[in-house]
Amino acid sequence: MPPLRRLDVVLDSVKRLQRIGATANLLNLLQKQHPADLAEVLGDLRPLERRSAFDTLLGHNSRLAMEALSELDREVGAALLVDRPAEALARLFPELPSDDAAALIDQLPEDLAASVLELMRESGEVQHLLGYDDRTAGRIMNPEVFALSEDLTAGEAIQALQGSRDVEMVFYLYVVDERRHLVGVVSLRRLLLVSPETPLKRIMTTELIRARVDTDQEDVAREVADYNLLAIPVVDGENKLAGIITVDDVIDVIKDEATEDILRLAGVSADESVATSPFEAWRKRLPWLAVNLATAALAALVVQRFEATIDRVVALAAFMTIVASMGGNAATQTLTVIVRGIALGELTWGNTWRALRKETLVGLANGMVFGIAGAGIAWWVVGNPYFGAILALAMVINLIVAAFAATLIPISLRALKVDPALASAVFITTLTDVFGFFAFLGLATFFIRYL
Amino acid sequence: MPPLRRLDVVLDSVKRLQRIGATANLLNLLQKQHPADLAEVLGDLRPLERRSAFDTLLGHNSRLAMEALSELDREVGAALLVDRPAEALARLFPELPSDDAAALIDQLPEDLAASVLELMRESGEVQHLLGYDDRTAGRIMNPEVFALSEDLTAGEAIQALQGSRDVEMVFYLYVVDERRHLVGVVSLRRLLLVSPETPLKRIMTTELIRARVDTDQEDVAREVADYNLLAIPVVDGENKLAGIITVDDVIDVIKDEATEDILRLAGVSADESVATSPFEAWRKRLPWLAVNLATAALAALVVQRFEATIDRVVALAAFMTIVASMGGNAATQTLTVIVRGIALGELTWGNTWRALRKETLVGLANGMVFGIAGAGIAWWVVGNPYFGAILALAMVINLIVAAFAATLIPISLRALKVDPALASAVFITTLTDVFGFFAFLGLATFFIRYL
Repeated sequence: MPPLRRLDVVLDSVKRLQRIGATANLLNLLQKQHPADLAEVLGDLRPLERRSAFDTLLGHNSRLAMEALSELDREVGAALLVDRPAEALARLFPELPSDDAAALIDQLPEDLAASVLELMRESGEVQHLLGYDDRTAGRIMNPEVFALSEDLTAGEAIQALQGSRDVEMVFYLYVVDERRHLVGVVSLRRLLLVSPETPLKRIMTTELIRARVDTDQEDVAREVADYNLLAIPVVDGENKLAGIITVDDVIDVIKDEATEDILRLAGVSADESVATSPFEAWRKRLPWLAVNLATAALAALVVQRFEATIDRVVALAAFMTIVASMGGNAATQTLTVIVRGIALGELTWGNTWRALRKETLVGLANGMVFGIAGAGIAWWVVGNPYFGAILALAMVINLIVAAFAATLIPISLRALKVDPALASAVFITTLTDVFGFFAFLGLATFFIRYL
Repeated sequence: MPPLRRLDVVLDSVKRLQRIGATANLLNLLQKQHPADLAEVLGDLRPLERRSAFDTLLGHNSRLAMEALSELDREVGAALLVDRPAEALARLFPELPSDDAAALIDQLPEDLAASVLELMRESGEVQHLLGYDDRTAGRIMNPEVFALSEDLTAGEAIQALQGSRDVEMVFYLYVVDERRHLVGVVSLRRLLLVSPETPLKRIMTTELIRARVDTDQEDVAREVADYNLLAIPVVDGENKLAGIITVDDVIDVIKDEATEDILRLAGVSADESVATSPFEAWRKRLPWLAVNLATAALAALVVQRFEATIDRVVALAAFMTIVASMGGNAATQTLTVIVRGIALGELTWGNTWRALRKETLVGLANGMVFGIAGAGIAWWVVGNPYFGAILALAMVINLIVAAFAATLIPISLRALKVDPALASAVFITTLTDVFGFFAFLGLATFFIRYL
């Protein structure tokens, strides 16, 4: 990742201009940036510098300031707004497309969000979006969608388009009937290829992919990605056109969902990022580690039950960690392949059985290879072939258990409509710790006379 | 994830029609599907069924068959081609856009790929793409880009567009000078809003974001996502227009890179998926587990050095696993936040120091909280407050080491231009195992007279 040189220069200039108090120059520099670049520069400033730069811009170009803010990490963005009066916020949000405004309002403390919405009641649209469930098409769509009546001709359609303003990225033109039911779509390019008198009805495609307001955002993203769409229309329960989701919003969903899976698998809250404050990060990671402490204590209790055995053959204490560690890593591999397969839609109900078979076979094969290798190491170090044999057997058992657990737990969570990524490494690796210790020390206790 | 009901029906019908040998009906059904749907159905069939369905389609509609194949998991797709003669393949690949063809050819065994390319030499384009480095803009771009001369008027541009065929998703029209240098861009919508006599030069935007053929595909994806673009032009070292990367390709890059990070963090090869065969999966996971066996053996040797101490206080064997497990999980949390932060471009050189400070603080705070909690459990179970105190101290040390290692290792890998996700849990958790055992057993040995 080569550093973006231009933005580094901008960042340094912003800091310098702030230091010498050259507000006019600072403003001039900020106003020249693209909102996405501004967000990156703001994100790299310290909190106080960020606040000051944002306020400077907000005073002179509130639209650009708000656009940059909506590109910032949400937590960081909300922190820049949270201590302002509701009246000021209610004036600022209408600068943004209503889907972006809704996402930001959602980040504010409940009281403040309620007051802001009360004040914005006239505008209606933002409130409307917040009425849909989180993570649905309704929540992320832009309700300002450009639609044409099915009675128009191609020429009239082009005229209507020329008269439109402020419509997000128009390239598909949705066609509706007199009661706003979605009946078809015409691409901008197609409009250019026919004579102006052609009725839209004749050139529109009627078989079109649409999402419903209550469709899960992940399913919407998958449809857009699978069919290579630039946008997808969103309809209500009666097939009335309610909004549009464009591909840039879909990219955000895909990135967010991937981030969420990666973080959850590691036992981190889905909304943590590099920008999260140390205190917040500590508070958010605490519960996961608390669960791990409880399960690790369980594993320790299992070991404690075998203290008499360890007391007789103290080398068991060293080698039990190998069995547990291999189980944990093999389980993490399986878990990750399964969770990612579910997220990408590659693991369907149809091939679940095949996946379980595959993972069990891989677990068995790896158990045998590394069981024998571990047995060799143990024999060599401890000087007792039986010690090695017990380690090999425990490894095979633990790796098969790991494969089973790491496949079935996320699949079961999905069946229960819980995020499979919640079956994070925290749970699975402790499970393999417990089983690994139990198998190894249990076998050792049973065959203690050979050790 | 609600199952896609329509496709389940298609899948069942395909299986049924295959079973009763109703080839004509089967072909009819397959030909009605969108390539993306076909790929999903093919992916869900067993290998033999898949081969048979694909061959049926290939015989009658090779274009659709190849399009579906290019949407399949790459490994699965290549398996459907690999045993065909080079001559047959050389006739099939031209059915695809050259970027898709290049990606598929890249998956074939080297000998076969070379023969196919030799036979396709006339077409030139695919070979041209394969000349660029893997994971660069040049490799994933489509060289068939629609460009207009800067001397045209808006009306002439629309005429040129009407005459064009088979051009991938046109919405930005790139403007070039007489030597094909990229000089500007006009949106399709803008063309409609001006009078036909307006020269392109007057309405084109000259400040446009472009990628170079050697730009890393991840950087291209970030630019397209950050600036909400639908496509990005790719130029060579002399600013000559070489191709176009559309947003659908960018979505694939974003998904692939996220998958790669998720899998690598877990110690799985970047190209494994649910569809990988058991044997392949075993072969690919083997090296990661071998590394883990080596590092786990190292941790076991550390424990072995303290056998005399464990022999005297056997409860240490049970409680050392808690210190190691907490360290491993805390390290995984930190590692994942850092690696994802790098991938999303949120962790820049500018805020590296802040990230290290945050992670150390979180490690210290968690070490104290869980050190005290663990000490309480140990005191209660073992009945010795000094035992608890040693556990607490070891936990604090191990969690700070975990924070440092899990922050600095991926950052250092990035500085060395190695994928930070390669600092996978395999390495980091064994590191915390070693440190955890060493800190806990070392302290116990030092304070053995209190235990």
